[in-house]
Amino acid sequence: MTERIRGLLAPVVTPFDASLKPDPERLLRHCRWLLSQGSGLAVFGTNSEANSLSVDERIALLDYLVEGGIPTQQMMPGTGCCAITDSIRLTARAVNNGVAGCLMLPPFYYKGVTDEGLYRNFATIIDAVGNARLRIYLYHIPPVAQVGISFELIERLLKSYPGTVAGIKDSSGDWSNTQGLVSRFAGSGFDVFAGSESFLLPNLRAGGVGCISATANVNPAAIHRLLRHWQTPEADGLQAGLDTVRAIFQKRPMIAALKRAIAHWSGDETWSRVRPPLVELGTEQAAALISELDAVRFEMPGLHN
Amino acid sequence: MTERIRGLLAPVVTPFDASLKPDPERLLRHCRWLLSQGSGLAVFGTNSEANSLSVDERIALLDYLVEGGIPTQQMMPGTGCCAITDSIRLTARAVNNGVAGCLMLPPFYYKGVTDEGLYRNFATIIDAVGNARLRIYLYHIPPVAQVGISFELIERLLKSYPGTVAGIKDSSGDWSNTQGLVSRFAGSGFDVFAGSESFLLPNLRAGGVGCISATANVNPAAIHRLLRHWQTPEADGLQAGLDTVRAIFQKRPMIAALKRAIAHWSGDETWSRVRPPLVELGTEQAAALISELDAVRFEMPGLHN
Repeated sequence: MTERIRGLLAPVVTPFDASLKPDPERLLRHCRWLLSQGSGLAVFGTNSEANSLSVDERIALLDYLVEGGIPTQQMMPGTGCCAITDSIRLTARAVNNGVAGCLMLPPFYYKGVTDEGLYRNFATIIDAVGNARLRIYLYHIPPVAQVGISFELIERLLKSYPGTVAGIKDSSGDWSNTQGLVSRFAGSGFDVFAGSESFLLPNLRAGGVGCISATANVNPAAIHRLLRHWQTPEADGLQAGLDTVRAIFQKRPMIAALKRAIAHWSGDETWSRVRPPLVELGTEQAAALISELDAVRFEMPGLHN
Repeated sequence: MTERIRGLLAPVVTPFDASLKPDPERLLRHCRWLLSQGSGLAVFGTNSEANSLSVDERIALLDYLVEGGIPTQQMMPGTGCCAITDSIRLTARAVNNGVAGCLMLPPFYYKGVTDEGLYRNFATIIDAVGNARLRIYLYHIPPVAQVGISFELIERLLKSYPGTVAGIKDSSGDWSNTQGLVSRFAGSGFDVFAGSESFLLPNLRAGGVGCISATANVNPAAIHRLLRHWQTPEADGLQAGLDTVRAIFQKRPMIAALKRAIAHWSGDETWSRVRPPLVELGTEQAAALISELDAVRFEMPGLHN
């Protein structure tokens, strides 16, 4: 059994060319920069616009990154789709590529589905993939997916697939839920990632293993610093610094704001594009974002060099 | 320009074999029965578990139906996906197959998206498909998709694509919304379908063109009777009869209940299967459904003969 993937992971934003096709070369370059800053790669997350990509597009990008030399033990691609056949195909491909884990949304079209139905979804995928190297991280993000992951569902999955169901990303935004996950499941080797660095310090102190955060796309080194120093006296100060930057991004449409910052600090306008139904920041919104970031001396050192 | 598709359409339920693969032959047989009962075919709707099918599975089923001789002027497949590349591919295939219209969900993963983003989604699809025969029916189903279709969005799309944006299915469950759509847009040749037969008579009286309803899978002839006689004195009585049957299905998980009834009246248990995250009715639930339907003398004459 290989070492578990832990610490900081970025849901890597996906660049698009002028015809809105994914740009694998720019994605590779951003992945390399993130790795150099101490962040692992949760490609195909919510902030990657993964659900705006076809399964074929996701597979082509994943293969390109692996062929480009991105270390697969640093990768936790999102592979949970609405259609179970898509989830199986994408998960199998990711495992065959050797990734450390798969971050799995529940099927999110139907609302009010039962835990029995969600259990069958994950169990069918695990059985169909049929690979002992598979590590699943459940993705709990009720504000977006609307369909959540209950404690009872986790308990049942852990009982049936103890080696395979390896952890969760909790993007509920509700610290008491994250805390409850850690206290109930961390003891059975279930790794709890906070859904943003806002809860990184409390999560580490409680017994969680890190965070998977949108803003890791732009502020990875500072978040990684807290990970290295969370047991030192400077930890609370580092957390406060992260919160300041996070707040600037969070009061705007997150994906468009992340891409705007990357476009600005790389000098590459391609990065500002998003796929519909998302919309890039307008000129005034963009100027306000950069000015607020400048005011806190935010930088992206060495970006895409 | 060919005649518009109107009246009654069923979001055709999708049969699955023992390994949960779609069963094209049984789907074809059900489509033929629906046509014989006066219903058109909104394959790949919510009640078809379309979002539990991969795009490849949907294309294979669509091609099978067309090759099997199903008249394409009776078809309005669902082609709206989260990923714009999927929507383009599926819509282009449907139009090339000659379908009467495409029923399009908005991209439904991201919540709180803007009308500008939704406009770009539909405009990009229409432009990319680039076929004058395309007729789009917007699919407004906020209880499930969470992302809805606003009046302002319709107005803007009608202005840019007057021949292409042809109507809407309103599954809001809110009659005042349906009424508002008819009074604001029906005059510009925009066809309003109620999302169920519960609003069929009021919709026809207001100036709408019919309904696209889950229960058309099981009760098509009776719904079609109301369509033929809505201007006669028996109309209110016919509507009341439809409401009685609808209520029996509606108090259960709809898709599982529809499939249970089809399995029962066809004597073919294959029909009871659903894909995760849905779950078939349990034994007691199934018995209660059939007994309530028997009590109102419900039948499915000639089903799959």
